Amino acid sequence: MPLSPEQQAEIDALRGNPQPTLRTVAPGMEKHLYQARPVLDHGFVRVIDYMGDDAAICQAARVSYGKGTKSVQNDEGLIRYLMRHWHSTPFEMCELKLHVKLPVFVARQWIRHRTANVNEYSARYSILDREFYIPAPEHVNAQSEVNNQGRGDVLQGEEAARVLEILKADSARCYDNYEAMISADGQAGLARELARMNLPANIYTQWYWKVDLHNLFHFLRLRADAHAQYEIRVYADTICEMVADWVPAAYGAFEDYRMGAVTMSSQMVECLRRMLKGETVTKENSDMSAREWREFEEVIK
Amino acid sequence: MPLSPEQQAEIDALRGNPQPTLRTVAPGMEKHLYQARPVLDHGFVRVIDYMGDDAAICQAARVSYGKGTKSVQNDEGLIRYLMRHWHSTPFEMCELKLHVKLPVFVARQWIRHRTANVNEYSARYSILDREFYIPAPEHVNAQSEVNNQGRGDVLQGEEAARVLEILKADSARCYDNYEAMISADGQAGLARELARMNLPANIYTQWYWKVDLHNLFHFLRLRADAHAQYEIRVYADTICEMVADWVPAAYGAFEDYRMGAVTMSSQMVECLRRMLKGETVTKENSDMSAREWREFEEVIK
Amino acid sequence: MPLSPEQQAEIDALRGNPQPTLRTVAPGMEKHLYQARPVLDHGFVRVIDYMGDDAAICQAARVSYGKGTKSVQNDEGLIRYLMRHWHSTPFEMCELKLHVKLPVFVARQWIRHRTANVNEYSARYSILDREFYIPAPEHVNAQSEVNNQGRGDVLQGEEAARVLEILKADSARCYDNYEAMISADGQAGLARELARMNLPANIYTQWYWKVDLHNLFHFLRLRADAHAQYEIRVYADTICEMVADWVPAAYGAFEDYRMGAVTMSSQMVECLRRMLKGETVTKENSDMSAREWREFEEVIK
Amino acid sequence: MPLSPEQQAEIDALRGNPQPTLRTVAPGMEKHLYQARPVLDHGFVRVIDYMGDDAAICQAARVSYGKGTKSVQNDEGLIRYLMRHWHSTPFEMCELKLHVKLPVFVARQWIRHRTANVNEYSARYSILDREFYIPAPEHVNAQSEVNNQGRGDVLQGEEAARVLEILKADSARCYDNYEAMISADGQAGLARELARMNLPANIYTQWYWKVDLHNLFHFLRLRADAHAQYEIRVYADTICEMVADWVPAAYGAFEDYRMGAVTMSSQMVECLRRMLKGETVTKENSDMSAREWREFEEVIK
Repeated sequence: MPLSPEQQAEIDALRGNPQPTLRTVAPGMEKHLYQARPVLDHGFVRVIDYMGDDAAICQAARVSYGKGTKSVQNDEGLIRYLMRHWHSTPFEMCELKLHVKLPVFVARQWIRHRTANVNEYSARYSILDREFYIPAPEHVNAQSEVNNQGRGDVLQGEEAARVLEILKADSARCYDNYEAMISADGQAGLARELARMNLPANIYTQWYWKVDLHNLFHFLRLRADAHAQYEIRVYADTICEMVADWVPAAYGAFEDYRMGAVTMSSQMVECLRRMLKGETVTKENSDMSAREWREFEEVIK
Repeated sequence: MPLSPEQQAEIDALRGNPQPTLRTVAPGMEKHLYQARPVLDHGFVRVIDYMGDDAAICQAARVSYGKGTKSVQNDEGLIRYLMRHWHSTPFEMCELKLHVKLPVFVARQWIRHRTANVNEYSARYSILDREFYIPAPEHVNAQSEVNNQGRGDVLQGEEAARVLEILKADSARCYDNYEAMISADGQAGLARELARMNLPANIYTQWYWKVDLHNLFHFLRLRADAHAQYEIRVYADTICEMVADWVPAAYGAFEDYRMGAVTMSSQMVECLRRMLKGETVTKENSDMSAREWREFEEVIK
Repeated sequence: MPLSPEQQAEIDALRGNPQPTLRTVAPGMEKHLYQARPVLDHGFVRVIDYMGDDAAICQAARVSYGKGTKSVQNDEGLIRYLMRHWHSTPFEMCELKLHVKLPVFVARQWIRHRTANVNEYSARYSILDREFYIPAPEHVNAQSEVNNQGRGDVLQGEEAARVLEILKADSARCYDNYEAMISADGQAGLARELARMNLPANIYTQWYWKVDLHNLFHFLRLRADAHAQYEIRVYADTICEMVADWVPAAYGAFEDYRMGAVTMSSQMVECLRRMLKGETVTKENSDMSAREWREFEEVIK
Repeated sequence: MPLSPEQQAEIDALRGNPQPTLRTVAPGMEKHLYQARPVLDHGFVRVIDYMGDDAAICQAARVSYGKGTKSVQNDEGLIRYLMRHWHSTPFEMCELKLHVKLPVFVARQWIRHRTANVNEYSARYSILDREFYIPAPEHVNAQSEVNNQGRGDVLQGEEAARVLEILKADSARCYDNYEAMISADGQAGLARELARMNLPANIYTQWYWKVDLHNLFHFLRLRADAHAQYEIRVYADTICEMVADWVPAAYGAFEDYRMGAVTMSSQMVECLRRMLKGETVTKENSDMSAREWREFEEVIK
């Protein structure tokens, strides 16, 4: 994902020009601003703007006149309380704007999170770059045998090589033909809005994506999860690191009460209580399906 | 878009089984239920369910106990008033659920309308069918020379033939390779969530899409518009016909006050007033940009 | 909450007129249609319309052509899986429209659930009825001493009597003055949009409220919870009963995986694992705050 | 609306402490930050934070790496184009966070704009202040005789005096009784969540309200409109002044293409064309209802 010299120059110009503001400033986030953090082979995430910090969450929760902070410790306690008890509105008072470059098949998953603002690069209006996601060999996996929507072992040898060969060759040919169709050299040139249909889903697109912290946490919980597809998880992981620097108390609460938390069904809670009293509980006397029992065992082991 | 015999049998079974309900029934919509209306070469739109009718809009606007109708004529007057004065909430009280089959590049535009509910066929979980949109020759156009995001004249002769040949050949090859990669014959078989990235944007996908009437009208205004891309416009046009049968009064108001309406800027209104007083107004004395003046002339001519 | 004879007649007329439809019909919900279920002293909830049933959730999840059902048992298993794994979109494919009469202070809490459609009776346009919520004596509680936003013991004797007396007298006086101000008898008559400001928050208002099942479950989880204010909880409880009749499988999954479920933080899960291994875990060695430890003890006891 | 000395000190502290940031800074908005702009007798609006400026709208529309600006003039042209053609997403890339103090009956209208984030001062948790909106004599109007949801002439003499007397007396009495009921002096003290129901709708509440620029423009178009109730219009007018300083190009486009614009129905456009050709068009040969004709005449005169 090497930026062009012009792009890097634009970023440097923005980073070289601090200005005074009266707004809340989050020093941990200032260091990320505009920098392109590489993701996958040609993608990136970069922070374009942010609003608020940990103190702003508390200030809104208290509907206060000033900073609303008695102490950092107080604020952290309040934030943990708000997260634990599903008070979502104070977290909505922080906002993040990102510039993301990502393969189209990842973008299609990402866009399903509706409570966000998006401006995508238009392939009706502009010509897409010749950049395709080709997975690294260690991320070319077989279909999972136990999970219909998951991956199994890494492909080996000839099969892996053949897959990578196909992905590269088809991308290249489709793009060559895209270019040939829109070319105005000696022909009228196909409309871009039509020509784009020849491009496969591993081509890269870009967008500006703006979201509040509550909805961002929801996105991260689903997409940084172990069951998310690897290619979107790496974006979520990258954003997690940025958010940890931006709002450390909120991010800590998110880790404890969301990412690292477990929801136990009423049946699971009942079994737990029996086990803690010393009773031997098995799948047979648990009132759970086989699948739920397996999920339960994973939690308590 | 020939349905398989099984699919047609399922539709026939649903259509052959009327049941009594106490809910509002819209006879104009019952006739569309479950039928697949063909769109493009392999796509379709079919109504899965609906809630409400013209009277339900009025009933909600009046927060009434009963049908809320004094007469059909009264209802139509109220609906026109609500539409004209941007009272959107009564229209939100009707809901439509569609099953749509559409090319991925159309789906990508469509999904930008965020206030709707969507369940898309999952290519992580399932294998996509070998169905690709190949435009009819009369819809293979050159890039517009005046509009960066539009089409110009229909392509002719050799160029048109070459474009169609490319689209067909690349689709076929990409799909062959998709199938080869996921095959478990003598190999592990690539995960479906990875293999799908080899498929171009003219492959068909399907989804269930549910939306309220207010947001549907917003969708239709933008997508049934002459400036919308042809491939999404035909879907919008098809839905328009269904909506006209479902809520004729609301649809009529939509046509008069949205689709066929024109928004005039304060500058345009000012010019109009001067013209109606007999003054000669030209681009030069209009206080409009060249582009706005052109748009103004289109309206009043 | 006695309906007027006219209102009851309108409801009877609607209930006396079944019509054939090809849509999904949920027999359990048909019996509720239009009936006003009393809530509090003058309030009610009544079902105006619904879309979908348990099978429709599965049909959308499978993006299927027909009913999408292999068997009721299969459907229930799928629904429980979807709920357990936070697949929210299939539940969004069901929709409910209610007519609710409720005190203004309850309406102000309710409206904070933004993902819903609302038409409220307009006090700018119309005159409100003289109906105020006066709590039953067993629901007049003292401020909680442990919870800043909760209730303690029921008020007794003279204090309870005085409270009820005040609520009744102030409501009556405010309404008398509201009527006097808007009266056109021998005076111009104050605008209704101004006069309404004299009415206290226990006056009843009405609205049509339409919501999808996913967002309804979210509402019910928060508002049917033991920590919700009693006056909104009784509305949520009433709606729960309706939903249980409408989509029994989805409602059962909601009870097991949401209402009756417990979210355990990463610290809690860690403690649990230690306890199940036989270790003695106390607040001191738990890495939890006093408050979290108390919440943990409540779950496992 | 005099702030307490502590509140003013908190505001001064925030304004006295500029910090460097790399983010976009809008100098026109910095001057408003934290200042409480008085509205009505005890209300205010103050800017707590903002994200973006005119250039940020263009940057997002272009999905660019740097500031995305060629020149201020270019940017203004692009912004006007985006506004004229209903491209809403670039405007969503700016965000505003306000602290607002407002009467409850205004808050109830305001909250109907759902696409915003809100934290309201909780009367379950805290005790409300003794502050009520009492209209200035020049804003005490009679019910409109032509518009069911509007005001007519200003009330005069005795009637006006009586109205003001009632509003003041009932507010005072209700608040006295609210205080008496929650008092713990010699009694248990009624729960705050119950006591609040005795307070009339002219009591002031406060909230933090955060919204993107597109949705803010929608709010302003409806609420700064001549048909909006005076008491919410003054808030909208105040916010308009702030927005004009923040994003002058976008605000100018909003004035020309939204606030000052007129939507003409297909019938109106048809009449216009006939009139411009010299034809005499009257209500009778216009194909419009009496009401629409009146609205048409207002526009063109």
